Amino acid sequence: MSDKIHSIPLVRAGIDTYRQPVVFMHKDCHLCRAEGFSSLTRVEITLRERTIIASLNVVTDADWLAPDIAALSNSAWISLGARPGDKGFFGHAEPAKSASAIRAKVYGKKLAQDDFRRIVEDVLAFRLSDLDLAAFIASCAGDRLDLDETIALTRAMQDAGQTLDWGEGMVLDKHCVGGLPGNRTTPIVVAIVAAAGFRIPKTSSRAITSPAGTADSMEVMTPVALKIADLRRVVEAEGGCLAWGGELDLSPADDLLIRIERPLDFDSDGQLVASVLSKKAAAGSTHVLIDIPVGPTAKVRSPEAAESLAARMKAVAAALGLKLRIHVSDGSAPVGRGIGPSLEARDVLAVLRRQADAPVDLRERTLDLAGSLLDLAQGNGPIGREQAEALLVSGAAEAKFLAICEAQGGFFEPRLAPFHAVETAPVAGVIAEIDNRRIARIAKLAGAPGRKSAGVLLQRRPGERVDQGEPLYEIHAETSGELDWARDYARSSAPAFSICEDP
Amino acid sequence: MSDKIHSIPLVRAGIDTYRQPVVFMHKDCHLCRAEGFSSLTRVEITLRERTIIASLNVVTDADWLAPDIAALSNSAWISLGARPGDKGFFGHAEPAKSASAIRAKVYGKKLAQDDFRRIVEDVLAFRLSDLDLAAFIASCAGDRLDLDETIALTRAMQDAGQTLDWGEGMVLDKHCVGGLPGNRTTPIVVAIVAAAGFRIPKTSSRAITSPAGTADSMEVMTPVALKIADLRRVVEAEGGCLAWGGELDLSPADDLLIRIERPLDFDSDGQLVASVLSKKAAAGSTHVLIDIPVGPTAKVRSPEAAESLAARMKAVAAALGLKLRIHVSDGSAPVGRGIGPSLEARDVLAVLRRQADAPVDLRERTLDLAGSLLDLAQGNGPIGREQAEALLVSGAAEAKFLAICEAQGGFFEPRLAPFHAVETAPVAGVIAEIDNRRIARIAKLAGAPGRKSAGVLLQRRPGERVDQGEPLYEIHAETSGELDWARDYARSSAPAFSICEDP
Repeated sequence: MSDKIHSIPLVRAGIDTYRQPVVFMHKDCHLCRAEGFSSLTRVEITLRERTIIASLNVVTDADWLAPDIAALSNSAWISLGARPGDKGFFGHAEPAKSASAIRAKVYGKKLAQDDFRRIVEDVLAFRLSDLDLAAFIASCAGDRLDLDETIALTRAMQDAGQTLDWGEGMVLDKHCVGGLPGNRTTPIVVAIVAAAGFRIPKTSSRAITSPAGTADSMEVMTPVALKIADLRRVVEAEGGCLAWGGELDLSPADDLLIRIERPLDFDSDGQLVASVLSKKAAAGSTHVLIDIPVGPTAKVRSPEAAESLAARMKAVAAALGLKLRIHVSDGSAPVGRGIGPSLEARDVLAVLRRQADAPVDLRERTLDLAGSLLDLAQGNGPIGREQAEALLVSGAAEAKFLAICEAQGGFFEPRLAPFHAVETAPVAGVIAEIDNRRIARIAKLAGAPGRKSAGVLLQRRPGERVDQGEPLYEIHAETSGELDWARDYARSSAPAFSICEDP
Repeated sequence: MSDKIHSIPLVRAGIDTYRQPVVFMHKDCHLCRAEGFSSLTRVEITLRERTIIASLNVVTDADWLAPDIAALSNSAWISLGARPGDKGFFGHAEPAKSASAIRAKVYGKKLAQDDFRRIVEDVLAFRLSDLDLAAFIASCAGDRLDLDETIALTRAMQDAGQTLDWGEGMVLDKHCVGGLPGNRTTPIVVAIVAAAGFRIPKTSSRAITSPAGTADSMEVMTPVALKIADLRRVVEAEGGCLAWGGELDLSPADDLLIRIERPLDFDSDGQLVASVLSKKAAAGSTHVLIDIPVGPTAKVRSPEAAESLAARMKAVAAALGLKLRIHVSDGSAPVGRGIGPSLEARDVLAVLRRQADAPVDLRERTLDLAGSLLDLAQGNGPIGREQAEALLVSGAAEAKFLAICEAQGGFFEPRLAPFHAVETAPVAGVIAEIDNRRIARIAKLAGAPGRKSAGVLLQRRPGERVDQGEPLYEIHAETSGELDWARDYARSSAPAFSICEDP
């Protein structure tokens, strides 16, 4: 067909649809009319050598978009590589090649390695809609992905991105399945393991729904957005690093699936295993410790569920040639005192610096994990915990942590926020429980993770006794407005601490 | 929390997101920051007594939206009942109550009547996201909805909207599963059955992806957007009506599920049966004829698939107290000559008026269906087809059709479009096949169904011989531009007619 019909100017809509490419076109656009496009039509847009598929939103009566111009969402604009003045060619999108594999899985068929490769390829090329992805995720839920399929999905995800090659020798790693507020063990584990002489090139994520991710906490103390060359340099010098994984393109399909899994709130063991192990394999790890916190408000809620997940992890790791160890831990309450990037960094430093007021629970969990990982690497019985403790007590771990930060670009002391509010016990009694979700929400309303020093500082733990009016926790904020919002929420809704009142 | 924090002015974004409520907020909006909203967050918006849940799109750098204003998509604006100057209250949406039932179904559990009621309730209140609906649909695919569940879903969908009560006596209805281009039997069947003295209050849909729905074709000849009171008046006077069902709110959840099912392209017998029979039951029908065209490019592709669908239809109808009959028909090619609202209306009138050039295939299919429905209603052996033919031949059906149109507001003769192009045979030979999808696409590019007289007029049928240069079909359009677009497509892509060339 003639070009004049199928190409129109592209502009940037300035709208963030979170990775899903969306195109906005006016209802009177001749192309919409000619092609029979209507809202939610999957539209193929080609510019130079790139082609993307976007969902259409029709602009019916706004004056910011003229009829014969197409406005692209931020992700559509970026993935098409558009520049001001460009014209795009438009057409109906053909169904993705992998759509038939997804349909087969929905109908209960077993998929093969090639099917998963095609699905992952189409996920990365945005050829599948969010609805297709939701259907795929639902079709893999429960135990509908068997072991062969889990291995095939893991391989397909691993192969679709960058892979790091560290040459000869062991490469250690650790991962926690489903975080607890404040559970910031990773920086300490890395420092201990690197101080013991092992290689541990750790990459972490930023918070997505939580008040802080490991990368957010580390960023308070050192630069974390390392390119691959810098990451190699740091690891060669110090044995370990504590970088943000976002720029490294390891198992990139994972992020796109997680984007859909999170709002659906489905736990699929198969996809969880593929998600974790594809990243570890792509990062070149050889020995991996997986921490599975179990508790009523944690991701994994029962010992049976932990066992089933662990069995699948081990089988897939074996197929990929990874040595893997599972560490099941207590997931019933927040860990440490601080919740929020800087406050958690301060807990980490308190443990590394052997301060008298360092949170005991964070220290103990960290030593358990570091010890378990050392045992896995050395394979000579349970001596790792003692080694780990010695490295912490001697100050070797602290020195290694500072050296890693220096290699990454320098160490900075975490700041405290200027605005504080103390929340006190309304009655005297014993603290029965801390609601992980409410405490996390208060920290986020106070500004975490965007405001680095905002968050919550716990003053009491479950099992402790308080008198009426004694402090339970402090809210920290960088502006008085945010302090008010967090305090309003803390006071107007169900309390985050439940107290068994004295009789 | 204080009102100043959580309410901001609402404006209309003028963007059609096809029923999915979307809210656009600026990245610097204090509410986004305070609540930790980010793109795709499910946001609860309350105005007066109404509350809706919308997905958030964050406006990052456009100047049409100021920071502390929320712009609503058309569907969000309408379902909230917003007016200029209103301020809405914003918060995080709690997960829908039915989300746990959907999760259970995803994990393979059997759902009960109450589960389906909750799901349908949440669908109608837009408390479930499109992703949730996609997961629900995937979890019901294949035979994962058993008979009990299909019945429970049908009841839940039926009860969630309006129901019509026609008092004593039979109420007849017909439905075709998966349309073929040009298969416009309904107007003639209704005329014959009403002429035979039966009550048949037929409601139909407009085209969604096809070049014409029954309501689009009828609209060329008479008003179809009847309110319930008008529909009753027409049926009381004439025994039948041919109305658009869109204003009647019968099984309203169906439209919302279809919106997701269509792009997913899953055939789920359970949901198809629930979709069809919930509408029939809500419309007060007692005797229903279901036409299932079977063919390689039809919705139902094999006799076995038709049989399995028919068995489920019958069992669910029995549970609902509906008398139901299945009519399996040939779905291999378009029916009649015209494709597009007016052109199909002209075929309908040619049959009713006993014109010598009336399409024989449309006439025969119609008599089969009308006869079968009369037999179902009368229960006295296969005499219905003879009755039907007599009513058509005598002119009684034509008279009844005109009387129904007059009662609905008057009869208008369908117009022919001003622009025509004739597509001819490139070689001599026998016509092997007509591609339903390509012919439908050409009709849509020519303007159907929006342009009522646009479409395709077939001049030849499969099995007929043509010489080189003889006409195969005409394209009809209301503007020369649209004629060009349709012709460009017809000539630049694979031909719609395949011809077995003479040896």
